[in-house]
Amino acid sequence: MLTDKRILVTHAERFMGPALVDEFRRQGATVIADNNDLQTSDAVKKVINEAGDIDVLVVNLAITAPATRLTEVDSDEWKSVFAALVDPLPRLFKAVLPAMIERQRGKILLMGSAAALRGMKRTSTYSAARGAQLAYMQAAAIEMAPHYIQINAIAQNFVDNPTYFPAEVQSDPRFQARLKREVPLGRLVSAAEDAAFAAYLCSDKADCFVAQVFPVTGGWINR
Amino acid sequence: MLTDKRILVTHAERFMGPALVDEFRRQGATVIADNNDLQTSDAVKKVINEAGDIDVLVVNLAITAPATRLTEVDSDEWKSVFAALVDPLPRLFKAVLPAMIERQRGKILLMGSAAALRGMKRTSTYSAARGAQLAYMQAAAIEMAPHYIQINAIAQNFVDNPTYFPAEVQSDPRFQARLKREVPLGRLVSAAEDAAFAAYLCSDKADCFVAQVFPVTGGWINR
Amino acid sequence: MLTDKRILVTHAERFMGPALVDEFRRQGATVIADNNDLQTSDAVKKVINEAGDIDVLVVNLAITAPATRLTEVDSDEWKSVFAALVDPLPRLFKAVLPAMIERQRGKILLMGSAAALRGMKRTSTYSAARGAQLAYMQAAAIEMAPHYIQINAIAQNFVDNPTYFPAEVQSDPRFQARLKREVPLGRLVSAAEDAAFAAYLCSDKADCFVAQVFPVTGGWINR
Amino acid sequence: MLTDKRILVTHAERFMGPALVDEFRRQGATVIADNNDLQTSDAVKKVINEAGDIDVLVVNLAITAPATRLTEVDSDEWKSVFAALVDPLPRLFKAVLPAMIERQRGKILLMGSAAALRGMKRTSTYSAARGAQLAYMQAAAIEMAPHYIQINAIAQNFVDNPTYFPAEVQSDPRFQARLKREVPLGRLVSAAEDAAFAAYLCSDKADCFVAQVFPVTGGWINR
Repeated sequence: MLTDKRILVTHAERFMGPALVDEFRRQGATVIADNNDLQTSDAVKKVINEAGDIDVLVVNLAITAPATRLTEVDSDEWKSVFAALVDPLPRLFKAVLPAMIERQRGKILLMGSAAALRGMKRTSTYSAARGAQLAYMQAAAIEMAPHYIQINAIAQNFVDNPTYFPAEVQSDPRFQARLKREVPLGRLVSAAEDAAFAAYLCSDKADCFVAQVFPVTGGWINR
Repeated sequence: MLTDKRILVTHAERFMGPALVDEFRRQGATVIADNNDLQTSDAVKKVINEAGDIDVLVVNLAITAPATRLTEVDSDEWKSVFAALVDPLPRLFKAVLPAMIERQRGKILLMGSAAALRGMKRTSTYSAARGAQLAYMQAAAIEMAPHYIQINAIAQNFVDNPTYFPAEVQSDPRFQARLKREVPLGRLVSAAEDAAFAAYLCSDKADCFVAQVFPVTGGWINR
Repeated sequence: MLTDKRILVTHAERFMGPALVDEFRRQGATVIADNNDLQTSDAVKKVINEAGDIDVLVVNLAITAPATRLTEVDSDEWKSVFAALVDPLPRLFKAVLPAMIERQRGKILLMGSAAALRGMKRTSTYSAARGAQLAYMQAAAIEMAPHYIQINAIAQNFVDNPTYFPAEVQSDPRFQARLKREVPLGRLVSAAEDAAFAAYLCSDKADCFVAQVFPVTGGWINR
Repeated sequence: MLTDKRILVTHAERFMGPALVDEFRRQGATVIADNNDLQTSDAVKKVINEAGDIDVLVVNLAITAPATRLTEVDSDEWKSVFAALVDPLPRLFKAVLPAMIERQRGKILLMGSAAALRGMKRTSTYSAARGAQLAYMQAAAIEMAPHYIQINAIAQNFVDNPTYFPAEVQSDPRFQARLKREVPLGRLVSAAEDAAFAAYLCSDKADCFVAQVFPVTGGWINR
């Protein structure tokens, strides 16, 4: 349960945002559901200041993953994906951590992607950005652990969400066949399952985890 | 919550047994706390039969880890460690799975060790046995996933328990210094934290995980 | 090159044995190609004694992997697979290491399997045994590293060899389709490629590696 | 051996550049040792065009790793590290791959960092950039494997080089004590050992590897 926890969720209307906000509220948290683009330090500072004291920052950053061939990726794609998924990280961490260090308590959960752990075709830009996220998280977590701040990440793939797996994709029998073949679970992980696990990692019960990447992939990644 | 779940815990008085039984009961489960040595097929069949229908089997197998030098490990040590930690696995799985396959529902959680993931001195026999466990779990999990049976493992290290970290060890300042140096968390994971995570993996919320090894190590293992 | 290296290869007529022996000899090594079953300590001691001073022990242990359903694995299968793949390990290490410790120099390379790293159906017994091997190797390697002895492992899958991929399997178009689908390389790794990599790991150039598992799987395992 | 291989090494005077160029030449390769900063697409195209047909591109990108506290990382540090280590990747791959695709043959080796695999203090920016590299490599490798192009990476740490481990650091007894404690090998990997392994991965013998991250860390990373 997350009773009385104050949790800030970024990009709250995108990616896992809606499912996270619902689940956190259902578990009793006070959720600050933010929708700022986080493209400047000033914007990020404003978001963090207005949120007030928070127990957990959930870094949910979203962009539609481009499916460009490797040899056709252009500079605009590269810049926009890193601007959405990577560049906000140091701004967010810098804004939120001083208060957590002062209180010697706090958590950050990164909603990352297993695209950073195992290669797939036509995802080079997206995978690179997601790889930056996980490695950044691990370094930050090691540095913050002595302050009793726990930083961890979910690395997901094959989680049901309308951005990556819209209804028309899911109703395609070839997609269902691919799921059976490639994902040991044989189905998509539901958004609710993913959000419930995120809620666990935001709770006091998860005080023991630091610098850890948790795959949520229906068995696509084992370790 | 584990309301109304029937959970069988093996070696219930050893290793993580007591903490698991307590937590599962606290969360509303009916726990069959077994203490059989599981050294023969007949004994295992009897345990499973007497347990009746169970929702979750928690494979908690315990032995005091020998700290023998690599070049001094003898055949008795090897045999006894494998007899305690490894040989019961196929007996248990064979006894419990047919009913789960028939119901097309069930879970097995292996309480494994991160000694299988990262080498340490004077743990060769123990590490080997723990490595057999994790690899067996993964193969079994892939085979059982199409039957809607979820098999996963915790791979723990630096979790507080009287067998591996007795009070006299914990009160030694050199041990505390080692913890600060080697374990990013800076302290042992508590038995309650470990058991709470195990409870989560036994719950319906964890239906989305298969064949996965979850380190619980205070950051000693990251991925 | 392995000029003047004395290398002992176990089970030399099985699994990767022939390819390893050929490649090591081609690179100038003196190869002791042993075919003992290594089922007793005395047999192992005799093998090691007769081999004399060796620079590298290549632990190549072979058995035809059973393809038994998980729920049908019997005690005979379990015992025979562990007797072939696992139980010889402490005998071999105990027999060969004292001389290496005395010389403060030596290498052991384990020819392991990626079945220990990623689950597959109907391989539970085999995977368990291969998991024991890799975890044993890592613990042993950490303990022996201060003696300037380097212990590492290859974890292979989809490597061409007549035991696992006989000609009739390879000529089956469904097998070739599966290779294209599941193995990023799109073909089996050749026995010569695997042996060349093993030779590298046996050479002085590999003095810098300890306790490391090297997948050789055509990209089936990435990390 | 690399006889007659044409290999392009980027940032050839920095990081592992000098050791790589020496070793490749010693093994008979024709080495194009480039020192361009690779900061624009046009610059990169010029480098690739002038290099002519190449068998292997070695992506060696260097920057002195900042040791800034997490909460003090500024936008300039972030941008400059990504500009040096990350942004050149799509430019280089886009410029070099079309000819390799046409020939249906080629290799790219990324000289990456294990800072992307395991967290360390005061390395957040650098780790993030190195994480982007490895994940990008894996996605690119999966996409290019059907064209008989092999893309892999070394992920190194504790490799001797004047940038990260200058003489005054190495002569400090506390540094030597730290090496003994944290790195199972007990010493730095030599630049020559690292370069020899890179040479192996550039050779025809390594045609069987795709999308793989090879730690070179003296056992600091095992798998």
